[in-house]
Amino acid sequence: MPVPGPGYSITARVSAPASSGAAGELAAAIGRAGGVVTAFDVVDASADRILIDISCNALSADHVRTITEALTALAGVEVRKVSDRTFLMHLGGKLEVTPKISLRNRDDLSRAYTPGVARVCQAIAANPDDARRLTIKRNTVAVVTDGSAVLGLGNLGAAAALPVMEGKAALFKRFAGVDAWPVVLDTQDPDEIVSIVRAIAPAYGGINLEDIAAPRCFAIESRLRAELDIPVFHDDQHGTAVVVLAALRNAMRVVGKRLADCKVVVCGVGAAGSAIIRLMLPERPGEVLAVDLGGIVHPGRKDLDDNLAWIAAHTNSARTSGALAEALVGADVFVGVSAPNLLGEPELASMAADAVVFALANPDPEVDPLLAHRHAAVVATGRSDYPNQINNVLVFPGVFRGLLDAQARRVTDPMLRAAAAAVAGVVADPNPSFIVPSVFDPTVSVEVARAVAGVARAEGR
Amino acid sequence: MPVPGPGYSITARVSAPASSGAAGELAAAIGRAGGVVTAFDVVDASADRILIDISCNALSADHVRTITEALTALAGVEVRKVSDRTFLMHLGGKLEVTPKISLRNRDDLSRAYTPGVARVCQAIAANPDDARRLTIKRNTVAVVTDGSAVLGLGNLGAAAALPVMEGKAALFKRFAGVDAWPVVLDTQDPDEIVSIVRAIAPAYGGINLEDIAAPRCFAIESRLRAELDIPVFHDDQHGTAVVVLAALRNAMRVVGKRLADCKVVVCGVGAAGSAIIRLMLPERPGEVLAVDLGGIVHPGRKDLDDNLAWIAAHTNSARTSGALAEALVGADVFVGVSAPNLLGEPELASMAADAVVFALANPDPEVDPLLAHRHAAVVATGRSDYPNQINNVLVFPGVFRGLLDAQARRVTDPMLRAAAAAVAGVVADPNPSFIVPSVFDPTVSVEVARAVAGVARAEGR
Repeated sequence: MPVPGPGYSITARVSAPASSGAAGELAAAIGRAGGVVTAFDVVDASADRILIDISCNALSADHVRTITEALTALAGVEVRKVSDRTFLMHLGGKLEVTPKISLRNRDDLSRAYTPGVARVCQAIAANPDDARRLTIKRNTVAVVTDGSAVLGLGNLGAAAALPVMEGKAALFKRFAGVDAWPVVLDTQDPDEIVSIVRAIAPAYGGINLEDIAAPRCFAIESRLRAELDIPVFHDDQHGTAVVVLAALRNAMRVVGKRLADCKVVVCGVGAAGSAIIRLMLPERPGEVLAVDLGGIVHPGRKDLDDNLAWIAAHTNSARTSGALAEALVGADVFVGVSAPNLLGEPELASMAADAVVFALANPDPEVDPLLAHRHAAVVATGRSDYPNQINNVLVFPGVFRGLLDAQARRVTDPMLRAAAAAVAGVVADPNPSFIVPSVFDPTVSVEVARAVAGVARAEGR
Repeated sequence: MPVPGPGYSITARVSAPASSGAAGELAAAIGRAGGVVTAFDVVDASADRILIDISCNALSADHVRTITEALTALAGVEVRKVSDRTFLMHLGGKLEVTPKISLRNRDDLSRAYTPGVARVCQAIAANPDDARRLTIKRNTVAVVTDGSAVLGLGNLGAAAALPVMEGKAALFKRFAGVDAWPVVLDTQDPDEIVSIVRAIAPAYGGINLEDIAAPRCFAIESRLRAELDIPVFHDDQHGTAVVVLAALRNAMRVVGKRLADCKVVVCGVGAAGSAIIRLMLPERPGEVLAVDLGGIVHPGRKDLDDNLAWIAAHTNSARTSGALAEALVGADVFVGVSAPNLLGEPELASMAADAVVFALANPDPEVDPLLAHRHAAVVATGRSDYPNQINNVLVFPGVFRGLLDAQARRVTDPMLRAAAAAVAGVVADPNPSFIVPSVFDPTVSVEVARAVAGVARAEGR
């Protein structure tokens, strides 16, 4: 059962009788209604009334109504206003653009703007590489989306995707000092997206594609990689692939198996699943089976697009077919990047001993992690309220930090595998509940950046 | 003769004998070479040598060489390194993207990013207007260029235009708290520019077009204005027009004339000149003559594009033709937005008594302002080293502050005329050397914003 979390937290302004037990009764009522109180702030008090701001976590809009009704049902209690703390945090947007220079006087203005800036422009015109030295290009990444696959919510479009891109940009700065800017595009035409990103690229040292639906995202990324001289990274693909590879590396240490001996089932072959398979294959797993709505991917299937055809050709050496349940028999590793509640106890029981289950569908995983624990040795999800959260935040800030530091012109699979090794390496001694570091561990982005920049410099780009 | 200014300032690291007069000799040598010393910092000193960082203003790269040679010619003096202070200020770019929210712990992350952000996305998808409340759109402007007319330097392209756009964005924040972001486009195709700006628009509350060559800029602006539901403002046109109109208003007060009685000559009919004329005409000046390389604009000319044909139809009621010198005979006002050194003393002398001369070509004006002062009552230029600098910085920050505050969907000429009146009104008691406020006067952007927002609200947009 889901637990109320900070993603849905409210503050209720409540007027109550000023009895000594008033606060306790309010808290108890919220608790009975299933809410979790996180803060009490008395705003005002008189001889007979008390005004309190009560913050609490809830599950949903319905749940907030239930909590409000529970409060109102108390004798003499009045709920004045209920504010959604998540919306309060978003008021006015989450980013600002700040000058790094002071503009206190005429001299400052003359250097930062006209007439002094003219010479900087001429220097870049004469030597375009100087843009990486003398402009924001040095430290700035575009976070580009067409709003076609916003989180797990689907095709919400550009404007509705903006809060996610702003959040992503905030994380880039918070975790790696990267200046990132949201570019939300009111078009979903791949040709137009490619030509827009190409046109805006001079200001950026890298492009992070985000929440673009598969299979369109594959063509957009590969065309941009071919045409631009800055790295292009689709986080839903590569960020996920890197953190899954890192977690898998440590899970192998926990169960004492080698990937080369393992049968791996990847369920969901969209952006994330495809990238996980592609990044994993050079590490030579014993066997990989990709599974989607059509069952196990094999070359005989008639419904394969270019991406699935490539996957069919490079996985499933025995050319088996069948449903997910058949794929899982004897499997050592399950990686789900698909949909909620696809796995039951019989399928889990059919896996090999000391199985590893990554159920990453969000917000509801492929299998209840508590159920999975009955059969698997290591369980991970995408949720923050279970151990082993597989979170891209462990990856993208450090990857771009490294790419920018090395002034890399492209991002390559060896860089990404180095990033995965770096994330895994931060956990000195993994155990079943600790296969990836905390997202707040400050060494993660430093180690990832160092690893990526090292490979980039070795590759000479 | 030009004077060394802070736009070209250097710091020379100099090793000299540690005699008591060493510093004085260095300063004297720089002075003889025409440099202006602005700072002396002793870095290191021993019994026989002294190491000094000397900052000074110069005119050009040649001038810096002359200064360096003058120093080296002194007995025992060695110039170790010459740094350009303008370039030092630009290292790493001039902007950063800063989160407005804290991301200290898991709760913060859950609200600013997943899972909490999902509800904000859904709210915007359900009600797109919420983007102005819950995203950066509320306070953010795109500064868009194709690099085709960078300052007075010409077609330098997107990357070389970036330092100007960064500077502009810094001014937006410094003078009006507006978050502005540089969008430099690696295309000069008007169709492509229009479709790109349309596609990126969801993140922005306004578009500031910048340094786009005429006549392309006219079509781009008018198409964007027709297609977007946010204001589109080409600063080279409208920012210049507003500040010229403000300055002209106060110049009229100084010379005691009414615009309705004046003959106005506008020299240069590109982006700025055209906008000045269009914004001025509803104020019913006595006569306006537009002059370009082909002479006075009149309907009989065969070389008129759409813009010039409109200007020919709406100015020059007597249908005169001829060169600039003929236009100026008896003119009360000269507004030059054209090229250096077009006016001589005979032309100035032919103007009406108490003439007003705005010689705004940059960096070298249409006429030496000291020469102009012999004949004109009020003289203004675009330069910071003379009185009456006609500077767009007085306009664009406040205009967009007002547009954003009013959540305006377009910008109209009445708003711009209100902005001009507001700029002029900041100068309580104009005199020949004080017709526009200082760019550092903090009341300017406040008054402009109030005026613009007032008209926007009255117009219901």
